[in-house]
Amino acid sequence: MKELAKELNVSVATVSKALRDSHEISEQTKKTILEAASRLNYTMNPYASSLRNKKSKTIAVILPEVADNFFSLAINGIQSVAERKAYHVLIYLSHEKFLNEISIVNECNSGRVDGILISVTSETTNAEHIKKLLDENIPVVFFDRKIEDIHAASVTTNDYESGYQAALHLIDNGCHNLAFLSISASLSICNKRADGFKAALIEKNINETGNAIVECRGTNAEVYAQIKKLLTGDNPPDGIVASVERLAMTVYLICNETNVSIPDELKVIVFSTMETAPILNPPLSTITQPAFEIGKTAAELLFKGIEKKKYNLADEAIVLPSVLVARTSSLMS
Amino acid sequence: MKELAKELNVSVATVSKALRDSHEISEQTKKTILEAASRLNYTMNPYASSLRNKKSKTIAVILPEVADNFFSLAINGIQSVAERKAYHVLIYLSHEKFLNEISIVNECNSGRVDGILISVTSETTNAEHIKKLLDENIPVVFFDRKIEDIHAASVTTNDYESGYQAALHLIDNGCHNLAFLSISASLSICNKRADGFKAALIEKNINETGNAIVECRGTNAEVYAQIKKLLTGDNPPDGIVASVERLAMTVYLICNETNVSIPDELKVIVFSTMETAPILNPPLSTITQPAFEIGKTAAELLFKGIEKKKYNLADEAIVLPSVLVARTSSLMS
Repeated sequence: MKELAKELNVSVATVSKALRDSHEISEQTKKTILEAASRLNYTMNPYASSLRNKKSKTIAVILPEVADNFFSLAINGIQSVAERKAYHVLIYLSHEKFLNEISIVNECNSGRVDGILISVTSETTNAEHIKKLLDENIPVVFFDRKIEDIHAASVTTNDYESGYQAALHLIDNGCHNLAFLSISASLSICNKRADGFKAALIEKNINETGNAIVECRGTNAEVYAQIKKLLTGDNPPDGIVASVERLAMTVYLICNETNVSIPDELKVIVFSTMETAPILNPPLSTITQPAFEIGKTAAELLFKGIEKKKYNLADEAIVLPSVLVARTSSLMS
Repeated sequence: MKELAKELNVSVATVSKALRDSHEISEQTKKTILEAASRLNYTMNPYASSLRNKKSKTIAVILPEVADNFFSLAINGIQSVAERKAYHVLIYLSHEKFLNEISIVNECNSGRVDGILISVTSETTNAEHIKKLLDENIPVVFFDRKIEDIHAASVTTNDYESGYQAALHLIDNGCHNLAFLSISASLSICNKRADGFKAALIEKNINETGNAIVECRGTNAEVYAQIKKLLTGDNPPDGIVASVERLAMTVYLICNETNVSIPDELKVIVFSTMETAPILNPPLSTITQPAFEIGKTAAELLFKGIEKKKYNLADEAIVLPSVLVARTSSLMS
């Protein structure tokens, strides 16, 4: 910054404020300073200090996808912490494929990153690849989706309780034939949400003949066909709990095309953080996860593990509660 | 794969099919093979071959954000090519900050990646950081958002023409007082879309007194306040062209809160690839960009540059057309 200030004949404070995009600095001055920063090959702290500390000053975030609002918000939460720590964030997408995940994890296991935040794929059932990281003392924190049979840090939401509340909410609003749309029979979040859902059905003595848990696997087209068959077949459900955002979007699109009226003929609630829920037709009820907070908390935990080598990271299992927001799609009219 | 097949006493073909998630292989067999792959530290081609070729077998994708559907789809297009080439994809988010972008680009300029796909921030006006990459013969392809004053490969859409068509469409549907919501006065896509928009206004002799281009800058809350002021102030527009998805979502949320009726009082059309456009209330008109194709084409170009050192990448400037999809939000009732 000193070099920049000297070059431009302004104070270091002005440069500092411009680089932080302060409102005290005019747009023209900011532009001049940013251009000089680019010309002089200015690099933020991470790079310079990594040369000093022999740390990569980089963390990896391994995610199944980014199209879901949950993950966009979680990334923002992670980034808010990483920026404060002057760390770079590398995002790897596994695209819900276990083999991609193994390959990415192995790549991270080579000094490229100082720690890893991971939300596993819907195919992941085995934890050997993660155990290898832990064996080499690379800090790992699971967020949202974790593997059950490994002793590692995690930040999740109250999936069982939320699944239970969602089913109860639909039953209270007159549903008798409920379906839970899952994306995987091996994914922790889906199973816990489904278990809570089933507990409510048993408690209320409903749905005893129906096949309440519907696993929606495959390509988008295959999932579309499965849900269409469910909604237009014999004995269609009158209430749906969708485990992830895109399944509810598919339900809406199919109802729109086949003239099934929500909420009159079908009530819908979904685990989602989408901002557009209130402006859908009809407004969509959600179990809103604290996505930003989950990302932020997971990153804070990870940095504890990175900074204090003796910190007992693996014992941390933080659960942040979700909130049921009832809108038109699930309410008795 | 041979090792895996031997270990499990199955054919190499079975392992190969299981790893490609073929429908010919039972779920149980797939699970067994995936678990063995994890246990045996199986790594996909990229890692193994990078040791042989001294290439990183990695490309970087530098993006301003992932919350916008456009970028999710573009990533899928990029990944479809990278997978075929057995390359890893690293995703870096600049969060619309020019300084982040400089820092990320400089980090990539150290043998970590074999090539770079970039969509620049709304603050980026200077190309020095990119010129350094080109000087070191690192292949670079701009996609969607490019910098004008640099001779480099790009894949974009027909922004000027689409802005013109969008304005004409609103005028044809009875609008007399149009506003164009921009996110930056320095961003190529916004300026071209705005220029097309202004050309239509001049051609039709409307809007001569209004300030048709509204730049929406700052935090989400600041953008919200700006748009609310526009919609509830004196002389509110009767037609809006939004340059990016989140601006249209903000318009919808504000109209919902302030009981402004779309399309009766305000007509809206947006540059967006969002799947939920038909299920919003009311269904939202879009200028739909070929996002997946833009990502795929940009990646294909980049690999030409990576594989053929003498390929004249910089001369490539591919334009893929967008499509105007009129829905209720912009139609005369």
